[in-house]
Amino acid sequence: MKVIRTIQEMQQYAQAIKQERKSIGFVPTMGYLHEGHESLMMEARKNNDIVIMSIFVNPLQFGPNEDYDRYPRDEARDQKIAEQNQVDVLFIPSVDDMYPQEQTIQMKVIRRVNVMCGKSREGHFDGVATVLTKLFHLTYPNRVYFGMKDAQQVAVTAALITDLNFPIELIPVPTVREQDGLAKSSRNVHLSKSERSEAKYLYQALLKGQKLVVDGEKNPANIVKEVKNMIDHHINGKLDYVELLQFPSLEPLSTIDQQVILAAAVYFNNARLIDNLVFNKDGMLTSRI
Amino acid sequence: MKVIRTIQEMQQYAQAIKQERKSIGFVPTMGYLHEGHESLMMEARKNNDIVIMSIFVNPLQFGPNEDYDRYPRDEARDQKIAEQNQVDVLFIPSVDDMYPQEQTIQMKVIRRVNVMCGKSREGHFDGVATVLTKLFHLTYPNRVYFGMKDAQQVAVTAALITDLNFPIELIPVPTVREQDGLAKSSRNVHLSKSERSEAKYLYQALLKGQKLVVDGEKNPANIVKEVKNMIDHHINGKLDYVELLQFPSLEPLSTIDQQVILAAAVYFNNARLIDNLVFNKDGMLTSRI
Repeated sequence: MKVIRTIQEMQQYAQAIKQERKSIGFVPTMGYLHEGHESLMMEARKNNDIVIMSIFVNPLQFGPNEDYDRYPRDEARDQKIAEQNQVDVLFIPSVDDMYPQEQTIQMKVIRRVNVMCGKSREGHFDGVATVLTKLFHLTYPNRVYFGMKDAQQVAVTAALITDLNFPIELIPVPTVREQDGLAKSSRNVHLSKSERSEAKYLYQALLKGQKLVVDGEKNPANIVKEVKNMIDHHINGKLDYVELLQFPSLEPLSTIDQQVILAAAVYFNNARLIDNLVFNKDGMLTSRI
Repeated sequence: MKVIRTIQEMQQYAQAIKQERKSIGFVPTMGYLHEGHESLMMEARKNNDIVIMSIFVNPLQFGPNEDYDRYPRDEARDQKIAEQNQVDVLFIPSVDDMYPQEQTIQMKVIRRVNVMCGKSREGHFDGVATVLTKLFHLTYPNRVYFGMKDAQQVAVTAALITDLNFPIELIPVPTVREQDGLAKSSRNVHLSKSERSEAKYLYQALLKGQKLVVDGEKNPANIVKEVKNMIDHHINGKLDYVELLQFPSLEPLSTIDQQVILAAAVYFNNARLIDNLVFNKDGMLTSRI
Protein backbone atom coordinates (compact mmCIF):
# COMPACT_ATOMS: atom_id res chain seq x y z
CA MET A 1 0.00 0.00 0.00
CA LYS A 2 1.20 3.43 -0.96
CA VAL A 3 0.92 6.29 1.55
CA ILE A 4 0.70 9.75 0.00
CA ARG A 5 0.92 12.86 2.13
CA THR A 6 0.95 15.79 -0.31
CA ILE A 7 -1.81 17.00 -2.54
CA GLN A 8 0.59 17.43 -5.44
CA GLU A 9 1.71 13.79 -5.35
CA MET A 10 -1.89 12.62 -4.92
CA GLN A 11 -3.10 14.55 -7.94
CA GLN A 12 -0.21 13.37 -10.12
CA TYR A 13 -0.71 9.77 -9.05
CA ALA A 14 -4.46 9.81 -9.73
CA GLN A 15 -3.92 11.52 -13.08
CA ALA A 16 -1.47 8.79 -14.10
CA ILE A 17 -3.94 6.06 -13.07
CA LYS A 18 -6.67 7.67 -15.18
CA GLN A 19 -4.33 7.78 -18.16
CA GLU A 20 -3.92 4.02 -17.81
CA ARG A 21 -7.72 3.86 -18.17
CA LYS A 22 -8.10 2.30 -14.74
CA SER A 23 -11.11 3.01 -12.57
CA ILE A 24 -10.71 4.64 -9.15
CA GLY A 25 -12.90 3.97 -6.12
CA PHE A 26 -12.54 6.61 -3.43
CA VAL A 27 -13.33 6.29 0.27
CA PRO A 28 -13.06 9.63 2.10
CA THR A 29 -12.78 9.21 5.89
CA MET A 30 -11.71 11.03 9.03
CA GLY A 31 -9.77 7.96 10.17
CA TYR A 32 -10.04 6.00 13.41
CA LEU A 33 -11.35 3.28 11.19
CA HIS A 34 -13.93 0.70 12.22
CA GLU A 35 -15.99 -1.99 10.52
CA GLY A 36 -18.21 0.66 8.97
CA HIS A 37 -15.23 2.02 7.05
CA GLU A 38 -14.12 -1.52 6.23
CA SER A 39 -17.43 -2.18 4.49
CA LEU A 40 -16.76 0.90 2.34
CA MET A 41 -13.27 -0.34 1.44
CA MET A 42 -14.60 -3.79 0.59
CA GLU A 43 -17.32 -2.33 -1.59
CA ALA A 44 -14.77 -0.12 -3.37
CA ARG A 45 -12.38 -3.07 -3.77
CA LYS A 46 -15.04 -5.11 -5.56
CA ASN A 47 -15.75 -2.64 -8.35
CA ASN A 48 -12.61 -0.59 -9.08
CA ASP A 49 -9.09 -1.16 -10.33
CA ILE A 50 -7.60 1.18 -7.74
CA VAL A 51 -8.92 2.01 -4.27
CA ILE A 52 -7.89 5.32 -2.72
CA MET A 53 -8.82 6.07 0.88
CA SER A 54 -8.24 9.45 2.48
CA ILE A 55 -7.84 10.17 6.17
CA PHE A 56 -8.38 13.82 6.95
CA VAL A 57 -10.03 15.30 10.01
CA ASN A 58 -11.38 18.34 8.22
CA PRO A 59 -11.33 21.41 10.48
CA LEU A 60 -13.76 23.22 8.17
CA GLN A 61 -16.63 20.89 9.07
CA PHE A 62 -16.30 21.29 12.84
CA GLY A 63 -17.98 24.16 14.67
CA PRO A 64 -16.07 26.25 17.25
CA ASN A 65 -17.59 24.27 20.16
CA GLU A 66 -17.35 20.87 18.53
CA ASP A 67 -14.91 18.02 19.01
CA TYR A 68 -12.25 18.72 16.37
CA ASP A 69 -9.40 18.58 18.89
CA ARG A 70 -10.55 15.45 20.65
CA TYR A 71 -11.77 13.64 17.54
CA PRO A 72 -10.02 10.25 17.96
CA ARG A 73 -6.94 9.62 15.81
CA ASP A 74 -4.72 6.52 15.41
CA GLU A 75 -2.79 6.59 12.17
CA ALA A 76 -0.68 3.47 12.74
CA ARG A 77 -3.76 1.36 13.39
CA ASP A 78 -5.59 2.96 10.44
CA GLN A 79 -2.72 2.07 8.12
CA LYS A 80 -2.93 -1.58 9.17
CA ILE A 81 -6.67 -1.74 8.63
CA ALA A 82 -6.38 -0.07 5.23
CA GLU A 83 -3.66 -2.54 4.22
CA GLN A 84 -5.71 -5.53 5.40
CA ASN A 85 -8.57 -4.33 3.22
CA GLN A 86 -6.35 -4.04 0.13
CA VAL A 87 -6.50 -0.31 -0.19
CA ASP A 88 -3.99 0.74 -2.85
CA VAL A 89 -3.37 4.29 -1.74
CA LEU A 90 -3.83 5.88 1.64
CA PHE A 91 -3.95 9.67 1.25
CA ILE A 92 -3.18 11.56 4.47
CA PRO A 93 -2.86 15.27 3.66
CA SER A 94 -1.96 17.92 6.21
CA VAL A 95 -4.27 20.78 7.13
CA ASP A 96 -1.69 23.27 5.85
CA ASP A 97 -1.57 21.55 2.48
CA MET A 98 -5.36 21.39 2.18
CA TYR A 99 -5.96 24.96 3.38
CA PRO A 100 -2.77 26.93 2.63
CA GLN A 101 -4.53 30.31 2.75
CA GLU A 102 -7.90 31.75 3.61
CA GLN A 103 -10.37 30.62 0.98
CA THR A 104 -11.68 33.08 -1.60
CA ILE A 105 -14.33 30.59 -2.70
CA GLN A 106 -16.87 29.43 -0.17
CA MET A 107 -19.32 26.61 -0.76
CA LYS A 108 -22.72 26.94 0.85
CA VAL A 109 -25.24 24.15 1.12
CA ILE A 110 -28.61 25.88 1.08
CA ARG A 111 -31.02 22.93 0.90
CA ARG A 112 -31.11 19.63 2.77
CA VAL A 113 -29.43 21.34 5.76
CA ASN A 114 -32.10 23.14 7.77
CA VAL A 115 -33.05 19.77 9.29
CA MET A 116 -31.41 16.93 11.22
CA CYS A 117 -27.71 17.48 11.95
CA GLY A 118 -27.64 20.65 9.87
CA LYS A 119 -29.74 22.44 12.48
CA SER A 120 -27.35 21.92 15.36
CA ARG A 121 -24.15 21.94 13.27
CA GLU A 122 -24.22 25.26 11.43
CA GLY A 123 -21.75 25.34 8.57
CA HIS A 124 -20.92 21.66 8.96
CA PHE A 125 -22.12 20.65 5.52
CA ASP A 126 -20.49 23.70 3.91
CA GLY A 127 -17.22 22.28 5.22
CA VAL A 128 -18.12 18.81 3.99
CA ALA A 129 -18.97 20.09 0.49
CA THR A 130 -15.73 22.08 0.33
CA VAL A 131 -13.43 19.28 1.40
CA LEU A 132 -15.16 16.75 -0.86
CA THR A 133 -14.84 19.07 -3.85
CA LYS A 134 -11.13 19.41 -3.15
CA LEU A 135 -10.64 15.68 -2.54
CA PHE A 136 -12.56 14.80 -5.72
CA HIS A 137 -10.21 17.08 -7.70
CA LEU A 138 -7.20 15.37 -6.14
CA THR A 139 -8.27 11.73 -6.51
CA TYR A 140 -10.30 11.61 -9.77
CA PRO A 141 -12.74 8.96 -8.54
CA ASN A 142 -15.14 7.08 -10.80
CA ARG A 143 -17.06 6.04 -7.69
CA VAL A 144 -17.16 7.41 -4.19
CA TYR A 145 -18.32 5.45 -1.14
CA PHE A 146 -20.21 6.76 1.89
CA GLY A 147 -21.83 5.03 4.83
CA MET A 148 -25.57 5.48 5.21
CA LYS A 149 -25.09 6.19 8.93
CA ASP A 150 -24.25 9.73 7.78
CA ALA A 151 -27.39 9.86 5.63
CA GLN A 152 -27.55 13.64 5.51
CA GLN A 153 -23.98 13.66 4.22
CA VAL A 154 -25.07 11.20 1.53
CA ALA A 155 -28.01 13.46 0.59
CA VAL A 156 -25.80 16.57 0.44
CA THR A 157 -23.09 14.78 -1.53
CA ALA A 158 -25.65 13.54 -4.03
CA ALA A 159 -26.71 17.15 -4.58
CA LEU A 160 -23.08 18.30 -4.79
CA ILE A 161 -22.37 15.77 -7.54
CA THR A 162 -25.54 16.59 -9.48
CA ASP A 163 -25.47 20.36 -9.10
CA LEU A 164 -21.83 20.73 -10.10
CA ASN A 165 -21.76 17.91 -12.68
CA PHE A 166 -19.01 15.90 -11.05
CA PRO A 167 -18.42 12.82 -13.24
CA ILE A 168 -18.70 10.59 -10.19
CA GLU A 169 -21.07 7.84 -9.08
CA LEU A 170 -22.09 7.98 -5.42
CA ILE A 171 -22.42 4.58 -3.71
CA PRO A 172 -24.21 4.59 -0.35
CA VAL A 173 -23.24 1.61 1.83
CA PRO A 174 -25.50 0.22 4.60
CA THR A 175 -24.69 1.09 8.21
CA VAL A 176 -22.62 -1.53 10.04
CA ARG A 177 -23.82 -2.25 13.57
CA GLU A 178 -22.59 -3.78 16.82
CA GLN A 179 -24.24 -7.00 18.00
CA ASP A 180 -26.85 -5.04 19.95
CA GLY A 181 -27.59 -2.81 16.97
CA LEU A 182 -25.61 0.30 17.88
CA ALA A 183 -24.29 1.89 14.68
CA LYS A 184 -20.48 1.67 14.44
CA SER A 185 -18.93 5.10 14.92
CA SER A 186 -15.49 6.45 15.73
CA ARG A 187 -17.15 8.48 18.47
CA ASN A 188 -18.44 5.36 20.32
CA VAL A 189 -15.11 5.18 22.20
CA HIS A 190 -16.17 8.32 24.07
CA LEU A 191 -19.18 6.59 25.67
CA SER A 192 -19.07 5.63 29.35
CA LYS A 193 -20.05 2.07 30.23
CA SER A 194 -23.57 3.03 31.24
CA GLU A 195 -23.99 5.27 28.20
CA ARG A 196 -22.84 2.41 26.01
CA SER A 197 -25.54 0.14 27.37
CA GLU A 198 -28.18 2.82 26.84
CA ALA A 199 -26.96 3.68 23.33
CA LYS A 200 -28.48 0.61 21.72
CA TYR A 201 -31.96 2.06 22.30
CA LEU A 202 -31.31 4.68 19.65
CA TYR A 203 -31.53 1.95 17.00
CA GLN A 204 -34.30 0.10 18.86
CA ALA A 205 -36.39 3.25 18.85
CA LEU A 206 -35.90 3.74 15.10
CA LEU A 207 -36.86 0.11 14.48
CA LYS A 208 -40.01 0.67 16.49
CA GLY A 209 -40.85 3.66 14.31
CA GLN A 210 -40.26 1.65 11.17
CA LYS A 211 -42.49 -1.15 12.48
CA LEU A 212 -45.32 1.34 12.93
CA VAL A 213 -45.08 2.13 9.21
CA VAL A 214 -45.04 -1.57 8.35
CA ASP A 215 -48.19 -1.88 10.45
CA GLY A 216 -49.91 0.87 8.48
CA GLU A 217 -49.17 4.16 10.27
CA LYS A 218 -48.79 6.96 7.70
CA ASN A 219 -48.58 10.03 9.92
CA PRO A 220 -44.97 11.19 10.45
CA ALA A 221 -45.85 13.07 13.66
CA ASN A 222 -47.20 9.95 15.34
CA ILE A 223 -44.10 7.98 14.48
CA VAL A 224 -41.71 10.72 15.63
CA LYS A 225 -43.62 10.90 18.92
CA GLU A 226 -43.31 7.15 19.58
CA VAL A 227 -39.60 7.16 18.75
CA LYS A 228 -39.01 10.13 21.06
CA ASN A 229 -40.91 8.41 23.85
CA MET A 230 -38.79 5.29 23.60
CA ILE A 231 -35.54 7.29 23.56
CA ASP A 232 -36.67 9.38 26.54
CA HIS A 233 -37.60 6.25 28.42
CA HIS A 234 -34.30 4.41 27.92
CA ILE A 235 -31.59 7.04 27.40
CA ASN A 236 -30.39 9.63 29.89
CA GLY A 237 -28.48 11.56 27.21
CA LYS A 238 -30.10 14.72 25.82
CA LEU A 239 -32.19 14.21 22.70
CA ASP A 240 -31.09 16.41 19.78
CA TYR A 241 -33.77 15.46 17.26
CA VAL A 242 -36.04 12.77 15.87
CA GLU A 243 -37.20 13.56 12.35
CA LEU A 244 -39.04 11.82 9.57
CA LEU A 245 -38.45 13.37 6.13
CA GLN A 246 -38.44 12.64 2.42
CA PHE A 247 -35.17 11.08 1.33
CA PRO A 248 -32.90 12.27 -0.20
CA SER A 249 -34.52 15.72 -0.54
CA LEU A 250 -34.92 15.92 3.27
CA GLU A 251 -38.12 17.91 2.79
CA PRO A 252 -40.93 17.44 5.31
CA LEU A 253 -44.02 15.47 4.32
CA SER A 254 -47.48 15.18 5.80
CA THR A 255 -48.15 11.55 4.98
CA ILE A 256 -45.75 8.73 4.22
CA ASP A 257 -46.29 8.16 0.51
CA GLN A 258 -42.70 7.77 -0.70
CA GLN A 259 -39.16 6.88 0.43
CA VAL A 260 -38.38 8.51 3.77
CA ILE A 261 -35.67 8.73 6.40
CA LEU A 262 -36.36 8.31 10.10
CA ALA A 263 -33.36 9.80 11.88
CA ALA A 264 -32.34 10.64 15.43
CA ALA A 265 -29.43 12.18 17.31
CA VAL A 266 -28.63 12.08 21.03
CA TYR A 267 -26.03 13.96 23.06
CA PHE A 268 -24.16 11.84 25.57
CA ASN A 269 -21.54 13.43 27.84
CA ASN A 270 -18.62 13.24 25.41
CA ALA A 271 -20.20 12.11 22.19
CA ARG A 272 -23.16 12.95 20.02
CA LEU A 273 -24.51 9.83 18.32
CA ILE A 274 -26.67 9.67 15.21
CA ASP A 275 -28.55 6.90 13.50
CA ASN A 276 -31.25 6.49 10.87
CA LEU A 277 -33.34 4.13 8.79
CA VAL A 278 -34.39 4.78 5.20
CA PHE A 279 -37.53 2.95 4.05
CA ASN A 280 -40.31 3.14 1.51
CA LYS A 281 -43.97 3.97 2.13
CA ASP A 282 -44.61 0.40 3.28
CA GLY A 283 -41.73 0.43 5.77
CA MET A 284 -39.39 -1.75 3.70
CA LEU A 285 -35.71 -0.71 4.03
CA THR A 286 -34.25 0.95 0.91
CA SER A 287 -31.58 3.53 0.11
CA ARG A 288 -32.31 4.91 -3.32
CA ILE A 289 -30.54 8.25 -3.99
CA MET B 1 -16.11 21.05 -36.09
CA LYS B 2 -18.38 19.14 -33.77
CA VAL B 3 -21.31 20.94 -32.13
CA ILE B 4 -22.44 19.43 -28.84
CA ARG B 5 -25.63 20.60 -27.15
CA THR B 6 -26.11 18.31 -24.15
CA ILE B 7 -24.02 18.09 -21.02
CA GLN B 8 -24.09 14.31 -21.12
CA GLU B 9 -22.59 14.14 -24.59
CA MET B 10 -20.02 16.80 -23.70
CA GLN B 11 -18.85 14.94 -20.61
CA GLN B 12 -18.62 11.62 -22.47
CA TYR B 13 -16.73 13.19 -25.34
CA ALA B 14 -14.23 14.94 -23.07
CA GLN B 15 -13.75 11.79 -21.01
CA ALA B 16 -12.94 9.82 -24.18
CA ILE B 17 -10.42 12.48 -25.27
CA LYS B 18 -8.67 12.28 -21.91
CA GLN B 19 -8.48 8.51 -22.18
CA GLU B 20 -6.62 8.99 -25.44
CA ARG B 21 -4.12 11.05 -23.39
CA LYS B 22 -4.83 14.14 -25.45
CA SER B 23 -4.71 17.60 -23.91
CA ILE B 24 -7.77 19.84 -23.89
CA GLY B 25 -7.74 23.62 -24.13
CA PHE B 26 -11.02 25.20 -23.07
CA VAL B 27 -12.38 28.62 -24.01
CA PRO B 28 -15.56 29.49 -22.08
CA THR B 29 -17.53 32.34 -23.70
CA MET B 30 -20.97 33.91 -23.80
CA GLY B 31 -20.84 34.01 -27.60
CA TYR B 32 -21.24 36.96 -29.98
CA LEU B 33 -17.63 36.35 -30.73
CA HIS B 34 -15.13 39.03 -31.65
CA GLU B 35 -11.38 39.29 -32.14
CA GLY B 36 -10.86 39.10 -28.38
CA HIS B 37 -12.36 35.62 -28.36
CA GLU B 38 -10.41 34.72 -31.48
CA SER B 39 -7.17 35.46 -29.69
CA LEU B 40 -8.24 32.99 -26.98
CA MET B 41 -9.02 30.32 -29.58
CA MET B 42 -5.69 30.89 -31.32
CA GLU B 43 -3.82 30.64 -28.04
CA ALA B 44 -5.68 27.43 -27.14
CA ARG B 45 -5.02 26.01 -30.63
CA LYS B 46 -1.27 26.49 -30.25
CA ASN B 47 -0.87 24.43 -27.08
CA ASN B 48 -3.52 21.71 -26.98
CA ASP B 49 -4.54 18.65 -28.96
CA ILE B 50 -8.23 19.47 -28.72
CA VAL B 51 -9.86 22.90 -28.40
CA ILE B 52 -13.31 23.08 -26.83
CA MET B 53 -15.18 26.37 -26.82
CA SER B 54 -18.44 26.87 -24.96
CA ILE B 55 -21.13 29.43 -25.71
CA PHE B 56 -23.46 29.92 -22.79
CA VAL B 57 -25.06 33.14 -21.66
CA ASN B 58 -25.15 32.20 -17.99
CA PRO B 59 -28.29 33.57 -16.29
CA LEU B 60 -26.73 33.02 -12.86
CA GLN B 61 -24.13 35.74 -13.39
CA PHE B 62 -26.62 38.45 -14.39
CA GLY B 63 -28.38 40.56 -11.78
CA PRO B 64 -32.16 41.16 -11.96
CA ASN B 65 -31.67 44.60 -13.55
CA GLU B 66 -28.85 43.61 -15.87
CA ASP B 67 -28.78 42.83 -19.58
CA TYR B 68 -29.32 39.05 -19.68
CA ASP B 69 -32.25 39.33 -22.09
CA ARG B 70 -30.64 41.79 -24.45
CA TYR B 71 -27.14 40.30 -24.29
CA PRO B 72 -26.32 39.98 -28.00
CA ARG B 73 -26.54 36.50 -29.54
CA ASP B 74 -25.73 35.22 -33.05
CA GLU B 75 -25.12 31.51 -33.07
CA ALA B 76 -24.74 31.04 -36.82
CA ARG B 77 -22.04 33.68 -37.01
CA ASP B 78 -20.35 32.30 -33.89
CA GLN B 79 -20.20 28.84 -35.44
CA LYS B 80 -18.44 30.23 -38.51
CA ILE B 81 -15.88 32.10 -36.43
CA ALA B 82 -15.21 29.05 -34.27
CA GLU B 83 -14.73 26.91 -37.36
CA GLN B 84 -12.38 29.44 -38.93
CA ASN B 85 -10.27 29.32 -35.80
CA GLN B 86 -10.04 25.52 -35.86
CA VAL B 87 -12.07 24.91 -32.75
CA ASP B 88 -12.70 21.16 -32.48
CA VAL B 89 -15.83 21.22 -30.37
CA LEU B 90 -18.37 23.96 -29.90
CA PHE B 91 -20.38 23.28 -26.75
CA ILE B 92 -23.73 25.09 -26.64
CA PRO B 93 -25.72 23.81 -23.66
CA SER B 94 -29.26 24.94 -22.84
CA VAL B 95 -30.16 26.74 -19.63
CA ASP B 96 -32.46 23.85 -18.68
CA ASP B 97 -29.67 21.33 -19.07
CA MET B 98 -27.21 23.43 -17.07
CA TYR B 99 -29.68 24.31 -14.31
CA PRO B 100 -32.31 21.54 -14.26
CA GLN B 101 -33.43 22.29 -10.69
CA GLU B 102 -32.83 24.84 -7.98
CA GLN B 103 -29.28 24.43 -6.74
CA THR B 104 -28.61 22.90 -3.33
CA ILE B 105 -24.97 23.94 -3.52
CA GLN B 106 -24.16 27.62 -3.82
CA MET B 107 -20.73 28.98 -4.51
CA LYS B 108 -19.84 32.28 -2.89
CA VAL B 109 -16.82 34.37 -3.79
CA ILE B 110 -15.90 36.18 -0.57
CA ARG B 111 -12.62 37.87 -1.52
CA ARG B 112 -11.58 39.79 -4.63
CA VAL B 113 -15.21 40.89 -5.10
CA ASN B 114 -15.85 43.87 -2.84
CA VAL B 115 -14.08 46.05 -5.42
CA MET B 116 -14.33 46.92 -9.12
CA CYS B 117 -17.22 45.18 -10.92
CA GLY B 118 -18.05 43.11 -7.84
CA LYS B 119 -19.34 46.22 -6.07
CA SER B 120 -21.96 47.08 -8.65
CA ARG B 121 -22.70 43.50 -9.75
CA GLU B 122 -23.68 41.68 -6.56
CA GLY B 123 -23.60 37.93 -6.97
CA HIS B 124 -22.06 38.19 -10.44
CA PHE B 125 -18.88 36.34 -9.54
CA ASP B 126 -20.80 33.71 -7.56
CA GLY B 127 -22.56 32.93 -10.83
CA VAL B 128 -19.25 32.92 -12.71
CA ALA B 129 -17.64 30.55 -10.19
CA THR B 130 -20.62 28.21 -10.35
CA VAL B 131 -20.84 27.99 -14.11
CA LEU B 132 -17.08 27.58 -14.48
CA THR B 133 -17.05 24.75 -11.93
CA LYS B 134 -19.78 23.01 -13.89
CA LEU B 135 -18.12 23.64 -17.27
CA PHE B 136 -14.75 22.42 -15.96
CA HIS B 137 -16.42 19.16 -14.86
CA LEU B 138 -17.97 18.77 -18.30
CA THR B 139 -14.93 19.57 -20.45
CA TYR B 140 -11.91 18.26 -18.48
CA PRO B 141 -9.55 21.04 -19.59
CA ASN B 142 -5.81 20.95 -19.07
CA ARG B 143 -5.76 24.69 -19.78
CA VAL B 144 -8.44 27.32 -19.71
CA TYR B 145 -8.23 30.66 -21.53
CA PHE B 146 -9.58 34.02 -20.38
CA GLY B 147 -9.20 37.52 -21.74
CA MET B 148 -7.51 40.04 -19.47
CA LYS B 149 -10.23 42.57 -20.29
CA ASP B 150 -12.23 40.74 -17.63
CA ALA B 151 -9.34 40.95 -15.17
CA GLN B 152 -11.48 40.50 -12.09
CA GLN B 153 -12.86 37.31 -13.63
CA VAL B 154 -9.27 36.16 -14.15
CA ALA B 155 -8.44 36.94 -10.50
CA VAL B 156 -11.52 35.10 -9.22
CA THR B 157 -10.93 32.11 -11.50
CA ALA B 158 -7.32 31.87 -10.34
CA ALA B 159 -8.62 31.63 -6.77
CA LEU B 160 -11.30 29.12 -7.78
CA ILE B 161 -8.68 26.85 -9.32
CA THR B 162 -6.29 27.16 -6.37
CA ASP B 163 -8.83 26.95 -3.56
CA LEU B 164 -10.62 23.91 -4.94
CA ASN B 165 -7.53 22.18 -6.41
CA PHE B 166 -8.80 22.04 -9.98
CA PRO B 167 -6.09 20.33 -12.07
CA ILE B 168 -6.22 23.16 -14.57
CA GLU B 169 -3.78 25.81 -15.77
CA LEU B 170 -5.25 29.28 -16.19
CA ILE B 171 -3.94 31.22 -19.20
CA PRO B 172 -4.74 34.96 -19.24
CA VAL B 173 -4.67 36.44 -22.74
CA PRO B 174 -4.03 40.16 -23.44
CA THR B 175 -6.98 42.38 -24.28
CA VAL B 176 -7.59 42.88 -28.00
CA ARG B 177 -8.39 46.47 -28.99
CA GLU B 178 -9.92 48.45 -31.82
CA GLN B 179 -7.66 50.76 -33.80
CA ASP B 180 -8.40 53.65 -31.45
CA GLY B 181 -7.69 51.50 -28.38
CA LEU B 182 -11.23 50.62 -27.30
CA ALA B 183 -11.23 47.12 -25.82
CA LYS B 184 -13.16 44.65 -27.97
CA SER B 185 -16.40 43.66 -26.27
CA SER B 186 -19.65 42.03 -27.33
CA ARG B 187 -21.40 44.95 -25.66
CA ASN B 188 -19.78 47.57 -27.95
CA VAL B 189 -22.62 47.03 -30.45
CA HIS B 190 -24.92 48.76 -27.99
CA LEU B 191 -23.00 52.05 -28.20
CA SER B 192 -24.49 54.98 -30.10
CA LYS B 193 -22.24 56.70 -32.64
CA SER B 194 -21.32 59.54 -30.29
CA GLU B 195 -20.79 57.12 -27.38
CA ARG B 196 -18.53 55.06 -29.59
CA SER B 197 -16.32 58.05 -30.31
CA GLU B 198 -16.14 58.92 -26.61
CA ALA B 199 -15.47 55.33 -25.55
CA LYS B 200 -11.85 55.35 -26.66
CA TYR B 201 -11.02 57.75 -23.81
CA LEU B 202 -11.54 54.95 -21.31
CA TYR B 203 -8.34 53.35 -22.55
CA GLN B 204 -6.61 56.70 -23.05
CA ALA B 205 -7.31 57.60 -19.43
CA LEU B 206 -5.85 54.30 -18.19
CA LEU B 207 -2.76 54.85 -20.34
CA LYS B 208 -2.36 58.27 -18.80
CA GLY B 209 -2.50 56.70 -15.33
CA GLN B 210 0.08 54.13 -16.31
CA LYS B 211 2.35 56.84 -17.69
CA LEU B 212 2.24 58.63 -14.34
CA VAL B 213 3.65 55.49 -12.73
CA VAL B 214 6.33 55.21 -15.39
CA ASP B 215 7.19 58.82 -14.57
CA GLY B 216 7.60 57.99 -10.89
CA GLU B 217 4.21 58.53 -9.24
CA LYS B 218 3.69 55.95 -6.48
CA ASN B 219 0.50 57.20 -4.85
CA PRO B 220 -2.59 55.26 -6.05
CA ALA B 221 -4.98 58.08 -5.05
CA ASN B 222 -3.20 60.61 -7.28
CA ILE B 223 -3.35 58.27 -10.25
CA VAL B 224 -7.00 57.41 -9.73
CA LYS B 225 -7.80 61.12 -9.53
CA GLU B 226 -6.07 61.89 -12.83
CA VAL B 227 -7.78 58.99 -14.59
CA LYS B 228 -11.18 60.09 -13.27
CA ASN B 229 -10.54 63.64 -14.43
CA MET B 230 -9.73 62.52 -17.94
CA ILE B 231 -12.81 60.27 -18.13
CA ASP B 232 -15.04 63.05 -16.77
CA HIS B 233 -13.61 65.46 -19.29
CA HIS B 234 -14.15 63.28 -22.37
CA ILE B 235 -17.03 60.91 -21.61
CA ASN B 236 -20.67 61.82 -20.99
CA GLY B 237 -21.49 58.33 -19.71
CA LYS B 238 -21.69 57.85 -15.92
CA LEU B 239 -18.48 56.73 -14.26
CA ASP B 240 -18.87 53.51 -12.25
CA TYR B 241 -15.37 53.27 -10.81
CA VAL B 242 -11.69 53.89 -11.27
CA GLU B 243 -9.57 51.75 -8.97
CA LEU B 244 -5.93 50.88 -8.50
CA LEU B 245 -5.35 47.65 -6.56
CA GLN B 246 -2.89 44.83 -6.03
CA PHE B 247 -3.25 42.17 -8.71
CA PRO B 248 -4.46 39.43 -8.54
CA SER B 249 -5.43 39.73 -4.84
CA LEU B 250 -7.39 42.93 -5.61
CA GLU B 251 -6.48 44.27 -2.17
CA PRO B 252 -5.94 48.02 -1.78
CA LEU B 253 -2.41 49.35 -1.36
CA SER B 254 -1.04 52.67 -0.16
CA THR B 255 2.01 52.87 -2.41
CA ILE B 256 2.74 51.15 -5.70
CA ASP B 257 5.43 48.63 -4.74
CA GLN B 258 4.21 45.55 -6.63
CA GLN B 259 2.09 44.39 -9.59
CA VAL B 260 -1.15 46.35 -9.71
CA ILE B 261 -4.29 46.74 -11.79
CA LEU B 262 -5.65 50.10 -12.86
CA ALA B 263 -9.26 49.49 -13.84
CA ALA B 264 -12.28 51.55 -14.83
CA ALA B 265 -15.93 51.07 -15.74
CA VAL B 266 -18.35 53.51 -17.37
CA TYR B 267 -22.09 53.29 -17.91
CA PHE B 268 -23.25 54.37 -21.35
CA ASN B 269 -26.97 54.38 -22.19
CA ASN B 270 -27.22 50.71 -23.20
CA ALA B 271 -23.86 49.28 -22.26
CA ARG B 272 -21.49 49.29 -19.33
CA LEU B 273 -17.90 49.15 -20.56
CA ILE B 274 -14.87 48.05 -18.57
CA ASP B 275 -11.15 48.19 -19.22
CA ASN B 276 -7.91 47.83 -17.29
CA LEU B 277 -4.16 47.75 -17.39
CA VAL B 278 -1.98 45.50 -15.22
CA PHE B 279 1.56 46.72 -14.62
CA ASN B 280 4.45 46.40 -12.19
CA LYS B 281 5.75 49.02 -9.76
CA ASP B 282 7.64 50.72 -12.58
CA GLY B 283 4.60 50.93 -14.83
CA MET B 284 5.68 48.14 -17.21
CA LEU B 285 2.76 46.03 -18.48
CA THR B 286 2.59 42.50 -17.04
CA SER B 287 -0.08 39.93 -16.22
CA ARG B 288 1.38 37.52 -13.70
CA ILE B 289 -1.31 35.54 -11.82
